[in-house]
Amino acid sequence: MKVLVLGGDGFCGWPTSLHLSDIGHDVTIVDNLSRRAIDLELEVDSLTPIRPIGERIRVWKELTGKNIEFVNLDLAQEYDRLETLLINERPDAIVHFGEQRAAPYSMRDTRSKRYTVDNNVRGAHNVLAAIVASGLDIALVHLGTMGVYGYGWSGSAPIPEGYLTVKVPTPDGDIEREILHPANPGSVYHLTKTLDQLLFAFYASNDQIRITDLHQGIVWGTQTPQTALDERLINRFDYDGDYGTVLNRFLMQAAIGHPLTVHGTGGQTRAFIHIRDTVRCIQIALENPPARGDKPMVFNQVTETHRVIELAQLISKLTGAEVALLPNPRREAAENELNVSRDRFLALGLNPTKLSEGLLEEARDVAERYRDRADTTKIIARSVWRQGMETSPDLVEG
Amino acid sequence: MKVLVLGGDGFCGWPTSLHLSDIGHDVTIVDNLSRRAIDLELEVDSLTPIRPIGERIRVWKELTGKNIEFVNLDLAQEYDRLETLLINERPDAIVHFGEQRAAPYSMRDTRSKRYTVDNNVRGAHNVLAAIVASGLDIALVHLGTMGVYGYGWSGSAPIPEGYLTVKVPTPDGDIEREILHPANPGSVYHLTKTLDQLLFAFYASNDQIRITDLHQGIVWGTQTPQTALDERLINRFDYDGDYGTVLNRFLMQAAIGHPLTVHGTGGQTRAFIHIRDTVRCIQIALENPPARGDKPMVFNQVTETHRVIELAQLISKLTGAEVALLPNPRREAAENELNVSRDRFLALGLNPTKLSEGLLEEARDVAERYRDRADTTKIIARSVWRQGMETSPDLVEG
Repeated sequence: MKVLVLGGDGFCGWPTSLHLSDIGHDVTIVDNLSRRAIDLELEVDSLTPIRPIGERIRVWKELTGKNIEFVNLDLAQEYDRLETLLINERPDAIVHFGEQRAAPYSMRDTRSKRYTVDNNVRGAHNVLAAIVASGLDIALVHLGTMGVYGYGWSGSAPIPEGYLTVKVPTPDGDIEREILHPANPGSVYHLTKTLDQLLFAFYASNDQIRITDLHQGIVWGTQTPQTALDERLINRFDYDGDYGTVLNRFLMQAAIGHPLTVHGTGGQTRAFIHIRDTVRCIQIALENPPARGDKPMVFNQVTETHRVIELAQLISKLTGAEVALLPNPRREAAENELNVSRDRFLALGLNPTKLSEGLLEEARDVAERYRDRADTTKIIARSVWRQGMETSPDLVEG
Repeated sequence: MKVLVLGGDGFCGWPTSLHLSDIGHDVTIVDNLSRRAIDLELEVDSLTPIRPIGERIRVWKELTGKNIEFVNLDLAQEYDRLETLLINERPDAIVHFGEQRAAPYSMRDTRSKRYTVDNNVRGAHNVLAAIVASGLDIALVHLGTMGVYGYGWSGSAPIPEGYLTVKVPTPDGDIEREILHPANPGSVYHLTKTLDQLLFAFYASNDQIRITDLHQGIVWGTQTPQTALDERLINRFDYDGDYGTVLNRFLMQAAIGHPLTVHGTGGQTRAFIHIRDTVRCIQIALENPPARGDKPMVFNQVTETHRVIELAQLISKLTGAEVALLPNPRREAAENELNVSRDRFLALGLNPTKLSEGLLEEARDVAERYRDRADTTKIIARSVWRQGMETSPDLVEG
């Protein structure tokens, strides 16, 4: 299968590109390297020493004989090149990771809010418009987020996979209607994924594009079997207050002797998935597309749920690190339950990596190994959801 | 009250600006004159001889002594100027008409789809971001569309004003939830208004912006008491296949002896409002804003509903014009019922102009008076919703 991976240089995109190449697909990475540019802007770097995309691809070819193409292209700004690429390459499928993906970054300031909306919405719409303009039947797999649903909205019912059947009162009695789960985004970043959902629903209906939207939980872990083949293929590991995801941050903090930074009470329950399962889920989604004319297919791409404080306590017990409760910069409930339907991927053969199995490996092979690369002034989250909200000073000296 | 009218040179924006100025508000029009530029692109012109914005404002001042300011600014492209404008002008309220508003134009080609999404979503988000950045408590009144709801979704229940209470099944029995009415947009244009709704919900919640969204029906009529004061203040009248609204198109067609062009069976039921009521509704919305922290307030800005074929038959009876059934370029149900809640504006004192009262005046004072300005090659709708759909050739010679 010929697959374009949009955002294929990023944290999820790079291991996905290697996995798809490894199992025999013809992969082209399309990326404007914006995530690396944001590292420059934030004056921080991946904890792991990631190599330039050209070197990554060369090493992959040397080790496996497999070819990955790379096109440096801005999805939001270079529509004409995108359309031409589709017409020339005639891909069977597009995997779309090419969006700004950090909630804290999206709330940082006016510029980052505007960039997140403009980049993500224009990019997603350009991809849809280019598929229509190409006249080709290209399946689209898009990375969504569990954050489109909000937390605690459904009472004791599990969060469904995308759609909800509700009863609507009418003068003739209740009628049943299937609706897209109501949008409850918690940041400008999450908001853009709820906008994407409406774009997808329209283009699936009007233009019969085959679309799969993957509502992913928080990714943890760094390496997949392919990225671990050679240090020059290593995946990125973000530990800073904007891009670092909670579990990876805790592991790095433990490795350098920094307190584990819990926002608020830590009573927030979140959904998790290992990066190894992310890449398998993308494969499964590509192999099981919806039919033309179907509404977008939605999978919940999560494997387990935990309270943040429980994760901190778990890592504290393993490593002896202290836990620090900091002001929460987000506007969110202090505590929530989370019950997520995730039957589809399990039914299609996903065999998840459990937190209880992968944590020690991650701590040893990544966080401890590269701990000297950490800049302790970048650990505390500085973005706040509304002007005047409190953050914490640095907890250790730089 | 100091009010910025974004899109204040357009079909709804101009009469609203005059009305608000007339009742004593301090009005500044912000417009990039894009609607006039699209006239150039489509090689068509308003049936009525509209004057340049500078002349319009000068004449208004001569006749009434009232001052309207004008700022030529692109909301989507000139964020920094917009933010500076808010900080300098410190408006109490913003009325936002500044979006591409024609469904057929939004489906015309890839460029117009992309323009509609980029312009409308970026523009709306820039306005929200600028209000937040200004730190001012500026109320926002936005022109939405009845098209966000779709048609026939609610069974025998009337379409509510924005929000719907549904029952969600859970293991503990049904729970009630109030949701934004599910989005069912029928074109890329309507899609952008459903995206706007999600932007508004987020910014009302996170930043406590006071927002009113007006889901307007199809506007008919041309003049208000203010625009009728002098021919140099006349409002625009669109009759072409992209921007002309159905009733105005029928009136103009009747005036020049062209068949009344009905798409499909004409069994589509649509909601209507006279332009005189639009401007009154904006005034009422400005005078009744939500409180800080409230969810966006939604009004259905419609006064009556009719089937398209019945309107054609009514005008045919008045004028002797033939009715022509043409292929429908839209993807929509051939026929639908439409039952709309519109209690709020009536409760707040709106006294609607009925179709039965205003039609003859409109036919005489506008369509017949300016019929020699019509270009008959622009009457047939050429945009189609999906490649390969049929349109009609011109019905009369140019």
